[in-house]
Amino acid sequence: MSETAGPVWDEAAIREFCRVTRAAGRALAKAGPTARRRAIDEAAGLLLSAPVRDRILLANQADMAAAQRPKGDGGREGEALSAAMLDRLRLDEGRLDKMAAALSEVAALPDPVGEIEKTWRRPNGLRIARQRIPLGVILIIYESRPNVTTDAGALCIRSGNAAILRGGSEAQRSNAALIEVVAEGLRRAGLPFQAVALCPSTDRQVMATLLLQDTYIDLVIPRGGEGLIRFVAEHSRIPVIKHYRGNCHVYVEKTADVQMALSICYNAKVQRPGVCNAAETILIDRELAPSFLPQLADRLGQAGVELRGDPAAREIVPSMKVATDEDFHAEFLDLVCAVGVVDGLSAAVAHIEHYGSDHTEAIVTTDLRQAQRFTDQVNSSCVVVNASTRFADGGELGLGAEIGISTTRLHAYGPMGAEQLTTTKYVILGDGQIRP
Amino acid sequence: MSETAGPVWDEAAIREFCRVTRAAGRALAKAGPTARRRAIDEAAGLLLSAPVRDRILLANQADMAAAQRPKGDGGREGEALSAAMLDRLRLDEGRLDKMAAALSEVAALPDPVGEIEKTWRRPNGLRIARQRIPLGVILIIYESRPNVTTDAGALCIRSGNAAILRGGSEAQRSNAALIEVVAEGLRRAGLPFQAVALCPSTDRQVMATLLLQDTYIDLVIPRGGEGLIRFVAEHSRIPVIKHYRGNCHVYVEKTADVQMALSICYNAKVQRPGVCNAAETILIDRELAPSFLPQLADRLGQAGVELRGDPAAREIVPSMKVATDEDFHAEFLDLVCAVGVVDGLSAAVAHIEHYGSDHTEAIVTTDLRQAQRFTDQVNSSCVVVNASTRFADGGELGLGAEIGISTTRLHAYGPMGAEQLTTTKYVILGDGQIRP
Repeated sequence: MSETAGPVWDEAAIREFCRVTRAAGRALAKAGPTARRRAIDEAAGLLLSAPVRDRILLANQADMAAAQRPKGDGGREGEALSAAMLDRLRLDEGRLDKMAAALSEVAALPDPVGEIEKTWRRPNGLRIARQRIPLGVILIIYESRPNVTTDAGALCIRSGNAAILRGGSEAQRSNAALIEVVAEGLRRAGLPFQAVALCPSTDRQVMATLLLQDTYIDLVIPRGGEGLIRFVAEHSRIPVIKHYRGNCHVYVEKTADVQMALSICYNAKVQRPGVCNAAETILIDRELAPSFLPQLADRLGQAGVELRGDPAAREIVPSMKVATDEDFHAEFLDLVCAVGVVDGLSAAVAHIEHYGSDHTEAIVTTDLRQAQRFTDQVNSSCVVVNASTRFADGGELGLGAEIGISTTRLHAYGPMGAEQLTTTKYVILGDGQIRP
Repeated sequence: MSETAGPVWDEAAIREFCRVTRAAGRALAKAGPTARRRAIDEAAGLLLSAPVRDRILLANQADMAAAQRPKGDGGREGEALSAAMLDRLRLDEGRLDKMAAALSEVAALPDPVGEIEKTWRRPNGLRIARQRIPLGVILIIYESRPNVTTDAGALCIRSGNAAILRGGSEAQRSNAALIEVVAEGLRRAGLPFQAVALCPSTDRQVMATLLLQDTYIDLVIPRGGEGLIRFVAEHSRIPVIKHYRGNCHVYVEKTADVQMALSICYNAKVQRPGVCNAAETILIDRELAPSFLPQLADRLGQAGVELRGDPAAREIVPSMKVATDEDFHAEFLDLVCAVGVVDGLSAAVAHIEHYGSDHTEAIVTTDLRQAQRFTDQVNSSCVVVNASTRFADGGELGLGAEIGISTTRLHAYGPMGAEQLTTTKYVILGDGQIRP
């Protein structure tokens, strides 16, 4: 499949690879926060050094060249990548600067390992604490973007976890050069370099075998299209953090400040339409619709947004296209927006429950009671009052870097930072207590 | 398979059953804490009323009679159950009293839904809160013990979750009578009675189909033997909380108070040997072994415990049987105990990492530094200093009732109470913020 030369990656070899990573992860977990921070800082420094950059950029150029070669026989490499994919794959000095800066930020994050979350005392004198510990080994499966190699590697180090990184075949040379940077950072901090490992084969069968190693791997985070995520979810015996789609709503309640509502709708839809926290549907209270909808159509129209309305919306703005049921389900990731008119908050919540994706929903209102009802009743991972849906992001929420956004409720829900890559153990301190 | 009469439970019927449960769960989640508490209190009251008890005991007698009938053709019912299984299945007035008391305790627990875990403010003025919400729909798969029906049902109500309860075929009549009590409690509190549903068929194929309904079910908790848990883990597309085995260790450090160490070892091994938080292996520091081991052998011997030692232990107490490598891996659940001599804390930790099951480990020591090293380095779900491993229990830790103990790190690790049946959403309060 891929061009990777070298040994055959049969199940025994994969198991051994996982075992070595897990053992290195244990050392990483036991090391102090200073060593973990230093490893990331060293990697950031290396990303700024000229000879290292040259090696990375050369490897990246080879990936870019291969990605533009005409289709080979059966292999994925050579299938000419789309312009968007090529752009994601490409590294340059500016992007390396940004990657180094991202590492420095992760290094500066508070170390979640060892943090005491809660303590309490029992009537028999036992003192109980819940203390954060790493999850163990995290498998991250991603496509194209080589910056995930350093970003995700650093977040795993910061949270005391070993990482197995399985990037796309089109980026394997770039990823191999970048993993060397992370490994050297670990070495310089006196930590086992094997704790962050690049999966040496990008063969799909190797990935499927990795997904069965629940003895060695604690969590899988797939980052990519819905096809990749479904493949992983169906083949994995390891728990998977899933992020399917973001169908985010803005509900403009009847007491909304109209200028604020226009500004939030515009920002949520237009500022970066191709990302998961962009708004896809705007719901407007029936009372406000006649005055608000024409202004919204005007404002979004100026940015080239195509509005698709339900019958009530189209009665007010007849130039809108017709919104089908599918449109209300859609994650457009484009300058297209579904518009619906609803009878008050309960109808808005019901619409969101039916069509939503549990990602992020916003209300614009000046009525405190409506704001409270909305935040109580909507159980999406982010519920926003009077701000743009675009704030549903680890960095914007202050979590530091983000490893992904979970749209399922198990373990973590919403943007995930270093803390969400840990769990808690109970520490129980006694002075001889036994059970009667 | 089972005797359950009635409609065929094909996939469409199962999906519809799940959909109805999920919709009822949404109403339960939105209801206030008072209604949820009232539903559980009403159920507790019903369990104390004579006519309800008569119905339950009659149903249970029918289950007991069927369980003792000679083996039928191919069916599970009629395979005469073991005495231990029959005991688990049996209900009587005393057990119903205990079940009612357990419900009242769950009703009195603080309601985790809506609790604000953490709040912070961003430089742009956004106020962020992490607020607890229910997981959604929880599928609980269990065997024999009918008390799980009311216990687990109540914990799910308390945490705002819908529940699908899939009990063993041998207890189906008892469970059906008990689910009526929970349903009537929900009705009396003005909540939809479908929110806690007994799976109407105990057919294994129906269970396998349920395990694929990840659109409707958020979490599976299997409670039973390792075989059941592996079946569920392998067939489920829904996240599973796994509890494989408890191979708990007590490490007697060289500075231990000998009387305390003897008392803790005795309690951990003998007080209830058949449960998962009983000790299976005792590790003793080499320096302390010559004086301690004979006393330990004497004390545990009096309780009829069979000790199996490694060569160093048997040199000191030659009457011990030989411990094989398998013995150190074993969850005996019996009056059998493996004994090992180790060279200090690091060797004890290495032994636990190699043989342990991530459940619960205890150290007995008077040296603060050793206690700290042990609690830092051992990442089992419960780490105990100077107390019995038997405290690794939701009730003993003060979580209220417990739905199970997770020995995997995803979502929850260790004893799980009502709080562990929830997740958190981000609530973001702004006054018009947009992303620049």
